[in-house]
Amino acid sequence: MAKPKIFSDHFSILKYLLRWTVIIVPVAAAIGSAVALFLWLLSAAIHYRFGHPWLLYLLPVAGVAIHFAYRLYGSSAEKGNNLIIDEIHEPGAGVPKRMGPLILVTTVITHLFGGSAGREGTAVQMGGSMAHLFGTWFKLDSTQMRTLLTAGIAAGFGAVFGTPLTGTIFAMEVLTIGQIKYDALLPCLIAGLVGDVTVSAWGIKHTAYHIDDVSAGLHGNAGNTLMMLLLLVKIIVASAAFGLASMAFAQATHSVKKICTQWFKQGWMIPVCGGIVIIALTWIIGKPDYLSLGVEPEYPGAVTIVSAFTHNGAYFFSWFWKLIYTAITLGTGFKGGEVTPLFYIGATLGNTLAGILNAPVSLFAALGFIAVFAGATNTPLACTLMGIELFGAEYSLFFAVACFTAYIFSGKAGIYSSQRTGVSKS
Amino acid sequence: MAKPKIFSDHFSILKYLLRWTVIIVPVAAAIGSAVALFLWLLSAAIHYRFGHPWLLYLLPVAGVAIHFAYRLYGSSAEKGNNLIIDEIHEPGAGVPKRMGPLILVTTVITHLFGGSAGREGTAVQMGGSMAHLFGTWFKLDSTQMRTLLTAGIAAGFGAVFGTPLTGTIFAMEVLTIGQIKYDALLPCLIAGLVGDVTVSAWGIKHTAYHIDDVSAGLHGNAGNTLMMLLLLVKIIVASAAFGLASMAFAQATHSVKKICTQWFKQGWMIPVCGGIVIIALTWIIGKPDYLSLGVEPEYPGAVTIVSAFTHNGAYFFSWFWKLIYTAITLGTGFKGGEVTPLFYIGATLGNTLAGILNAPVSLFAALGFIAVFAGATNTPLACTLMGIELFGAEYSLFFAVACFTAYIFSGKAGIYSSQRTGVSKS
Repeated sequence: MAKPKIFSDHFSILKYLLRWTVIIVPVAAAIGSAVALFLWLLSAAIHYRFGHPWLLYLLPVAGVAIHFAYRLYGSSAEKGNNLIIDEIHEPGAGVPKRMGPLILVTTVITHLFGGSAGREGTAVQMGGSMAHLFGTWFKLDSTQMRTLLTAGIAAGFGAVFGTPLTGTIFAMEVLTIGQIKYDALLPCLIAGLVGDVTVSAWGIKHTAYHIDDVSAGLHGNAGNTLMMLLLLVKIIVASAAFGLASMAFAQATHSVKKICTQWFKQGWMIPVCGGIVIIALTWIIGKPDYLSLGVEPEYPGAVTIVSAFTHNGAYFFSWFWKLIYTAITLGTGFKGGEVTPLFYIGATLGNTLAGILNAPVSLFAALGFIAVFAGATNTPLACTLMGIELFGAEYSLFFAVACFTAYIFSGKAGIYSSQRTGVSKS
Repeated sequence: MAKPKIFSDHFSILKYLLRWTVIIVPVAAAIGSAVALFLWLLSAAIHYRFGHPWLLYLLPVAGVAIHFAYRLYGSSAEKGNNLIIDEIHEPGAGVPKRMGPLILVTTVITHLFGGSAGREGTAVQMGGSMAHLFGTWFKLDSTQMRTLLTAGIAAGFGAVFGTPLTGTIFAMEVLTIGQIKYDALLPCLIAGLVGDVTVSAWGIKHTAYHIDDVSAGLHGNAGNTLMMLLLLVKIIVASAAFGLASMAFAQATHSVKKICTQWFKQGWMIPVCGGIVIIALTWIIGKPDYLSLGVEPEYPGAVTIVSAFTHNGAYFFSWFWKLIYTAITLGTGFKGGEVTPLFYIGATLGNTLAGILNAPVSLFAALGFIAVFAGATNTPLACTLMGIELFGAEYSLFFAVACFTAYIFSGKAGIYSSQRTGVSKS
């Protein structure tokens, strides 16, 4: 009686597919629309600050506002991405629906006044809280809710960076260090895809990056093979440094948070102090390059992620300053993601290391871009795919070498303290 | 005392990396060289048969020779890929070192006399047995032996298809259905890379495939978005069919084996009968297209994997005949891999479905190529990467949709009976 069994198996698979498609398409479209709104507001805030640089002086005040917004309305939403990861591992506590609007507004405020932060955290939290809300409406059980929450991460991540496949793998890979389980494979893919398409349909464009200065392919004659071997060694050395930078970033953010909680009895004093330090640093450095997102230049010649892909497009210590700026911004209670600053730290560190190692600048900027992120979030496979989605397949092997190496060197913990450990790193 | 702890962590990581690099480079170089020899012999055998088509009539005799070779010298090597997967899950039984030369010679014999089979099984078995041999020399403990065996699979797979990244992920993904563990992440990557580079260094070239007939990107205006949505639906329908073809292939091979063992008391009668059926089928069909590997054409206009990427490059039932030919060849004791026939079945089925669904031929051939393989081996992520490594990043999302869908639809078992189940499919 093998045949009927097989057909009933396939019938249940078809039901499973249809069911999840029907559930996920509206959720992911809603998340994609929220992300589109967020990206539009973010861009408006950043450009408004470019026109009104004095807004930076209000950063401490903005911090106090964010602090009280979370204190009054936030409840558990303060835990951010970790709350969503926790809820997937151990469903029950729930994800408050206010998390979405709160993180949206506070991230835009952070950027409007010049705080150095990212956007993936915002997208993931909007995705998670909206997925949870829809899941409650659909009366999903706890297993289904986990799948939907994972898909919500995929939708948010895929939408915010225009990388649906990376979003899919990231959502499954970020939960546990050292392993991927295929519980939510197709739901995540549908979510990543719909999230990305929705953002595009709203007319939002993503930044394009290019690698243009590596002429030799990996295959070729013996001379090329030797040159490639040398390049590979340089990539491994640089990637170990990328991994250490990931670790430094995670530890700096945690340390800032810890020290501030010890020093200040009044919670609202922490963002005031953080804001003041950011203002002071910007005075000392004399440049606003390390404020806010770092994708578009505030003035011609500013160091941005895009400029880091060109020769002399970053200073020797740009990566260090961005690390400090972001650790202070996020460690003192301002809101936003970590990933775009990690891109910035990686790309500028790649630029610096390319100079030291006499290596192709745009390639090393690209490797740093994905590898520092891979190390900090423990998602080497998603980041390899991100390299492929953003920069093309030609260097996929280098992307894997960089991400896997940085992952190994980035230490036992990452920026998400709620990650479980499946397989230890060595 | 956080600092010294961190440095000692990194020192142990560095030691781990150096240790595995030193172990794996010679192993993977040896495996790569063996694969290069194999590919060279295989090509020679295939071309010799093209010049001497009467060799097909000796296929039953060749089958008897293979049968007695395994009966006299084979011991546990008969279990093939499953033996290596078993040994990784439960070390102890060992992998006989004769497995490498035995599978090499018998695969070349199978192809010389026209049996329909592949090459990845051969490469993986050579990789596994050589890794085990080196592991014994290096006196590795059982955990290290597992890592080295996994890396051996990566080296063999990466070398035989020229896809190092796919080899890396395949080796980790094939062990357990529904999950990947990062136990052997960097060792596998080093192995895949060195295996691939070694084959290139020996001057062996891999077949290049191209997708050339899809003009619209995924991003664009609303009209394009609708067109893309329609294309996506077609891809999902086709991929469900690819998954069913994977299942049909796995079941056909198992059934042929089972029926033969029931029918024949004398073991050597099985390959004789298998050889005669292949000869009879080739008479009836009147074409040698479905014999052997199916990559190079025996005569101008023959259906090959390459021709399946072009309009009218395959017959409506080419996929079906290749499925039957291969199930009989491998089910009656001839040797070789399953993957290249799976590529053939997928590419020709993609060609047929493109005609039915009015879809781009070369894209659907490419999707079938990777998706039938993904379904049969339960490695959707590795196959997505294979699509990217072979055909470029432009369609990476389609590759993922095809491989994930085929994976879901391919049933609970695959061609490797030793795979464990980590996460069930629905």
